[in-house]
Amino acid sequence: MDFALDARTQELRETLLAFMDEHVYPAEAAFHADIEANPDRWGPPPMIEGLKEEARKQGLWNLFLPGKEGAGLTNLQYAPLAEITGRSPAIAPVALNCAAPDTGNMEVLHDFGTDEQKKQWLEPLLAGEIRSSFAMTEPDVASSDATNIGTSIVRDGDDYVINGRKWWITGAMNPAAKIFIVMGKTDPTAARHRQQSQILVPRDTPGVHVLRGMHVLGYDDRDHGGHAEIEFTDVRVPASNLIAGEGDGFAIAQARLGPGRIHHCMRSIGIAERAIALMCKRVNERVAFGKPLAEQGVIRDWIAESRVKVEQLRLLTLKTAWLMDTVGNKGAHSEIQAIKIATPRTVEWILDKAIQAHGAAGLSQDFPLAASFAGVRTLRFADGPDEVHKNSLAKAELRKHL
Amino acid sequence: MDFALDARTQELRETLLAFMDEHVYPAEAAFHADIEANPDRWGPPPMIEGLKEEARKQGLWNLFLPGKEGAGLTNLQYAPLAEITGRSPAIAPVALNCAAPDTGNMEVLHDFGTDEQKKQWLEPLLAGEIRSSFAMTEPDVASSDATNIGTSIVRDGDDYVINGRKWWITGAMNPAAKIFIVMGKTDPTAARHRQQSQILVPRDTPGVHVLRGMHVLGYDDRDHGGHAEIEFTDVRVPASNLIAGEGDGFAIAQARLGPGRIHHCMRSIGIAERAIALMCKRVNERVAFGKPLAEQGVIRDWIAESRVKVEQLRLLTLKTAWLMDTVGNKGAHSEIQAIKIATPRTVEWILDKAIQAHGAAGLSQDFPLAASFAGVRTLRFADGPDEVHKNSLAKAELRKHL
Amino acid sequence: MDFALDARTQELRETLLAFMDEHVYPAEAAFHADIEANPDRWGPPPMIEGLKEEARKQGLWNLFLPGKEGAGLTNLQYAPLAEITGRSPAIAPVALNCAAPDTGNMEVLHDFGTDEQKKQWLEPLLAGEIRSSFAMTEPDVASSDATNIGTSIVRDGDDYVINGRKWWITGAMNPAAKIFIVMGKTDPTAARHRQQSQILVPRDTPGVHVLRGMHVLGYDDRDHGGHAEIEFTDVRVPASNLIAGEGDGFAIAQARLGPGRIHHCMRSIGIAERAIALMCKRVNERVAFGKPLAEQGVIRDWIAESRVKVEQLRLLTLKTAWLMDTVGNKGAHSEIQAIKIATPRTVEWILDKAIQAHGAAGLSQDFPLAASFAGVRTLRFADGPDEVHKNSLAKAELRKHL
Amino acid sequence: MDFALDARTQELRETLLAFMDEHVYPAEAAFHADIEANPDRWGPPPMIEGLKEEARKQGLWNLFLPGKEGAGLTNLQYAPLAEITGRSPAIAPVALNCAAPDTGNMEVLHDFGTDEQKKQWLEPLLAGEIRSSFAMTEPDVASSDATNIGTSIVRDGDDYVINGRKWWITGAMNPAAKIFIVMGKTDPTAARHRQQSQILVPRDTPGVHVLRGMHVLGYDDRDHGGHAEIEFTDVRVPASNLIAGEGDGFAIAQARLGPGRIHHCMRSIGIAERAIALMCKRVNERVAFGKPLAEQGVIRDWIAESRVKVEQLRLLTLKTAWLMDTVGNKGAHSEIQAIKIATPRTVEWILDKAIQAHGAAGLSQDFPLAASFAGVRTLRFADGPDEVHKNSLAKAELRKHL
Repeated sequence: MDFALDARTQELRETLLAFMDEHVYPAEAAFHADIEANPDRWGPPPMIEGLKEEARKQGLWNLFLPGKEGAGLTNLQYAPLAEITGRSPAIAPVALNCAAPDTGNMEVLHDFGTDEQKKQWLEPLLAGEIRSSFAMTEPDVASSDATNIGTSIVRDGDDYVINGRKWWITGAMNPAAKIFIVMGKTDPTAARHRQQSQILVPRDTPGVHVLRGMHVLGYDDRDHGGHAEIEFTDVRVPASNLIAGEGDGFAIAQARLGPGRIHHCMRSIGIAERAIALMCKRVNERVAFGKPLAEQGVIRDWIAESRVKVEQLRLLTLKTAWLMDTVGNKGAHSEIQAIKIATPRTVEWILDKAIQAHGAAGLSQDFPLAASFAGVRTLRFADGPDEVHKNSLAKAELRKHL
Repeated sequence: MDFALDARTQELRETLLAFMDEHVYPAEAAFHADIEANPDRWGPPPMIEGLKEEARKQGLWNLFLPGKEGAGLTNLQYAPLAEITGRSPAIAPVALNCAAPDTGNMEVLHDFGTDEQKKQWLEPLLAGEIRSSFAMTEPDVASSDATNIGTSIVRDGDDYVINGRKWWITGAMNPAAKIFIVMGKTDPTAARHRQQSQILVPRDTPGVHVLRGMHVLGYDDRDHGGHAEIEFTDVRVPASNLIAGEGDGFAIAQARLGPGRIHHCMRSIGIAERAIALMCKRVNERVAFGKPLAEQGVIRDWIAESRVKVEQLRLLTLKTAWLMDTVGNKGAHSEIQAIKIATPRTVEWILDKAIQAHGAAGLSQDFPLAASFAGVRTLRFADGPDEVHKNSLAKAELRKHL
Repeated sequence: MDFALDARTQELRETLLAFMDEHVYPAEAAFHADIEANPDRWGPPPMIEGLKEEARKQGLWNLFLPGKEGAGLTNLQYAPLAEITGRSPAIAPVALNCAAPDTGNMEVLHDFGTDEQKKQWLEPLLAGEIRSSFAMTEPDVASSDATNIGTSIVRDGDDYVINGRKWWITGAMNPAAKIFIVMGKTDPTAARHRQQSQILVPRDTPGVHVLRGMHVLGYDDRDHGGHAEIEFTDVRVPASNLIAGEGDGFAIAQARLGPGRIHHCMRSIGIAERAIALMCKRVNERVAFGKPLAEQGVIRDWIAESRVKVEQLRLLTLKTAWLMDTVGNKGAHSEIQAIKIATPRTVEWILDKAIQAHGAAGLSQDFPLAASFAGVRTLRFADGPDEVHKNSLAKAELRKHL
Repeated sequence: MDFALDARTQELRETLLAFMDEHVYPAEAAFHADIEANPDRWGPPPMIEGLKEEARKQGLWNLFLPGKEGAGLTNLQYAPLAEITGRSPAIAPVALNCAAPDTGNMEVLHDFGTDEQKKQWLEPLLAGEIRSSFAMTEPDVASSDATNIGTSIVRDGDDYVINGRKWWITGAMNPAAKIFIVMGKTDPTAARHRQQSQILVPRDTPGVHVLRGMHVLGYDDRDHGGHAEIEFTDVRVPASNLIAGEGDGFAIAQARLGPGRIHHCMRSIGIAERAIALMCKRVNERVAFGKPLAEQGVIRDWIAESRVKVEQLRLLTLKTAWLMDTVGNKGAHSEIQAIKIATPRTVEWILDKAIQAHGAAGLSQDFPLAASFAGVRTLRFADGPDEVHKNSLAKAELRKHL
């Protein structure tokens, strides 16, 4: 057992930390001002392109993707880097072309796409030229149960015809999201986990109606393309747009989830570290009743608890990454569930305390805490509510003691 | 001891419940659509006027105000009614002319205002013709410590001249908020709690600069006039605008807080009841993994906990109202602190669970839960952070055992 | 609504408080020393008789029992008195002849007993001459589900013959517990809640084997007669020992639970108040790192939280008592469940903090906190685990929103 | 970074697991029966000697001690082994000669003892022939603040004379505890952390009065020698009994704490794993309301939470061990504090849920859960209450952001 970072990770970490200091943090104020000044635009401000260019130049590009198309890092190597990008979650992941949901979509195309699909969609995604969305969740059913999915994908000659309604399709309000991966049922009569398929639907296909952006605790998240409600009405695409085969949709979704979750968790830990830093800074400076807030016992308790909680959380996330690398996503299933359960509530707790330490300012647009709180709160639903994962994790534990 | 409502309260309760059913709930969809359609307007949609007229006709007007100018209710009688208005918090309190911060401002004018001040400002407020704001919190200091206040109110001949910066001035973005009660220091050298004064500043006085609306999580709360940052630069008003005498500002603020807090608490309990109802409805209807969510043990646990928590909370709030009526606000000091501490976190917990039971929809604009969460979250700061009140409550408890 | 105590309660309260000050608290040290010095004795030290005599003389006797056989108090009147006895839980309830499980047994005999049963058992119980036990829980099954009960009560001529094993039979190690009320099945084929009956079994009946005392977190609770495991082997009693009719056992148990729970809850609130007092006293006196612990913010937080929690809890318990008086135990069903859920965990929390404030001493025999913790911890199981009650409470709530 | 165990640890782990299965678990029932049958004996039953012999034979001896006197393991290697001993905490640590407080005392003698001190006391301790105690805590002061210590160690010719009162001296009721390491002040006027010294006091020295055993909840812990209150009255020992020099007491205590804490934490994690196993077994078997408890959602939630919590906790403890090995105890200071804070409350939570899943049986002598709860509860005080460590940890965090 060894808790030290390897040399490659260490080196990239230093490059990335310098990039954050020189390019990301200094861009934050202008980034958010630009968003506020353009209420009708969906997607990041144009200034992001300069950051992307710089990141690419420094070798901080597609770090999430193992193998030669990406940076060739293991999950364990990428994890501490993803954490750092979480400290400026609106900017850094996009700047490094490591933002959700593109990362998951690129992985799917990389692992399951045909050469043609890769050429048409993976290449411009890897190049940071377009964005993408993943359309699974539906308004009318509890989507954590994949058998509930109502969208149909019906073969008709050389085409598939798609009908259904999706929502919370992150990034899809951004016109740069040129391609949607849509999950639906090709065969509702097949076995439980063989009913679903995934198919590529270009944004401009007739019958694709992007209806509105969903809000998250008041935020429309338009800087990263929002969360769209989309209607698919008789949407017709060539049969070659199917990813892998009919009935493979559930398996592809599962394969997608492992890395996706660990990325979310690592970035969330970065959010927590930023929150702790802001909290400490604030209470060191703010005086009430004759002494700095930093001398209040209750606030110290929050800070100590934050540190104790985040250290444990990070280690579990790193171990999960290591398991994914050594025994595979399936072998790491319980640990992936564990971090999916542990992360949002822990980081939410820390953000809540950091907000409280800031007074009302902490809830406002003047600090990143409230927006982070909203983002992290959604993770308690994302990829299925925590309660579903806890139930499943408990079943696995119970089986050990039968 | 007797836990039954008296006849007057019971009767008003029934009138109010009918008003909610016939006028308020049916108006909610159009109310929020109107807000969404008018992003540049601050203040409630024009349709509120019809509701106000109807409420007034039914005797549901100024219920908060004891004595003959108001409805003549005790705090204990008003409390269960205020709770009901909390079930539709954006509409019902305004419709009944019982919305913060007007209620507190009306109380201040009623208790401390000169005849002239009453005629000019209290009368149109009681009539629901204008709105008002209370300007205490400042960006540069921890405002929970009143001695920190930086705004100056300096006598100059027959005038006072005001300089300072305030924020989180609720309602002040609404142009209908014609009058601001401003807290500042008339004598920074006086005894700790005699430095402050309160003064009436009409919105259109030269030097009053309403700069921007603060956000709460992602909400600008423009339907109830937002939370303004305001700069007061050499603002000159007649000396007769002072409320009570120089140095009375802290005492007036204290007098204001008791009723204000209990109103907030009761409305919050109404918010909690609405959340429980929505949660139950949702889980009764939503099916996952072959059965309604209502049959999941964890969700039942949330529902039982919500009921157990809210019942305790309501009783403490009612007892506090009774104490205010029988031994006065000062005698009820510890209990007022206790409900101020207990309410937001309890209701926040219930909202969190109701949101979780709704899936991502619970965080969105399609249900009132997320906006309520944001509103209730601010109460952990409003009138001073809970931590300040807990410290004070503990000191009182410790003194009993010296 | 009115939160003041009535005159009778107020008067009894003052008598009781004086009795506590003059007789109970001063007896505590000798009481516990006597227990420690007599490791083989089960039941309270002989000195309790003097306290009983004094209590009876002062009219502080059988306060729990409504009607002319008891003190004639309502539940709402008894509740604040029961709370006070909880401040010295090993002594005061016994001294006043208001200790569990005798109170419940006396109520059962009072409400369901024949004249003969009353003469033989109720009278000496009311006189404080004998003690009693209630034998329901069984080691082999989850006893919260009454249909699980395995003990059989079989009619044989003019007798009933009882076979089965019980445990956690509180008080039964005390030889003064002359009579056991035993719950068993007379007809396992009857409807779910008509299978059970209750029957009187004198301690000295052949076939009654009191096997051992169960421990609670290291305590054998021998001062109040412990918690026995008992085997009933072909125990034969006259048919006239049956309480009410065959099949009435479940209904009698339900009738018994309402008052029993509210008594437990009130006494637990008294335990909490004692803990708060001890905590405050300790931290006012104890100095570390140059100042009294009372100046540590975290400890103040505990004290404030304790106060806020206990005030809410007491009010819910009082309201439940009022409901029992005005609409009956059945009408108060949900509230009785609510206090059964809320009380133990709240008081446990307060005790935990009071212990922590005492350092290791708080866990020791030098303070009453640890023993109280053990006692209150058992209430999370007593009369069925909290989880069963929460499930039932949630179902009732859900039905309101169908 | 690498989360795999090394070969040596892996091998010892397998030996130890087999030893637990073959020798420890099968001995538990007889071990506890022997204790119950001998209420006047302090110290483990004689049967422990056979287990010690067997452990020694198998190379499972003094695993805690690095270097050639011990097993030569690093902290990181020992940690997973200590965890396993925690699954049977009354037996396994003693059987392996790895029980507190002997381990800490052996470390002190090993690191700071003279050759003569080592010969006389370390050798028989390493051989498992005698036991020992560490006397620091005092009844009259908050001992978490070392400057509070009242015991005096005064030079008088060739001797030191010791006066003072200690309590919670673990193991000291056991007559086999032949040697006490006593902390006292040699110079109350020296700098804050140079006032204290540590000195060896043989049990049979005149003036050493072992007064009574302290209880923990209701346990006297007599199987591991209890927790004594001891009076030292004019106790005279040769000057050569001083450990290191005058004024070194605080530094020695600090050096002692790192390993001591990590051992406690690892064993506690073993306790947690045992509790999870017992909980799963129980709910798999126990039926209520027509289905196994294992199918209740709330119980599954407890199991999932237990798993998620314990995984995080273990990793932080292992990382702390690694830090102690690589950067030293001082470099690992914050992490040692973090695990000291995180462990007891996490394991206490898991034990509480395991108890609840067992019904009242969980609190009784029939399962190890209640005794473990009491033991783990004390860790929130041991080596200073958690609150002191949180305060210190927060200060370190705050300094990073000045």
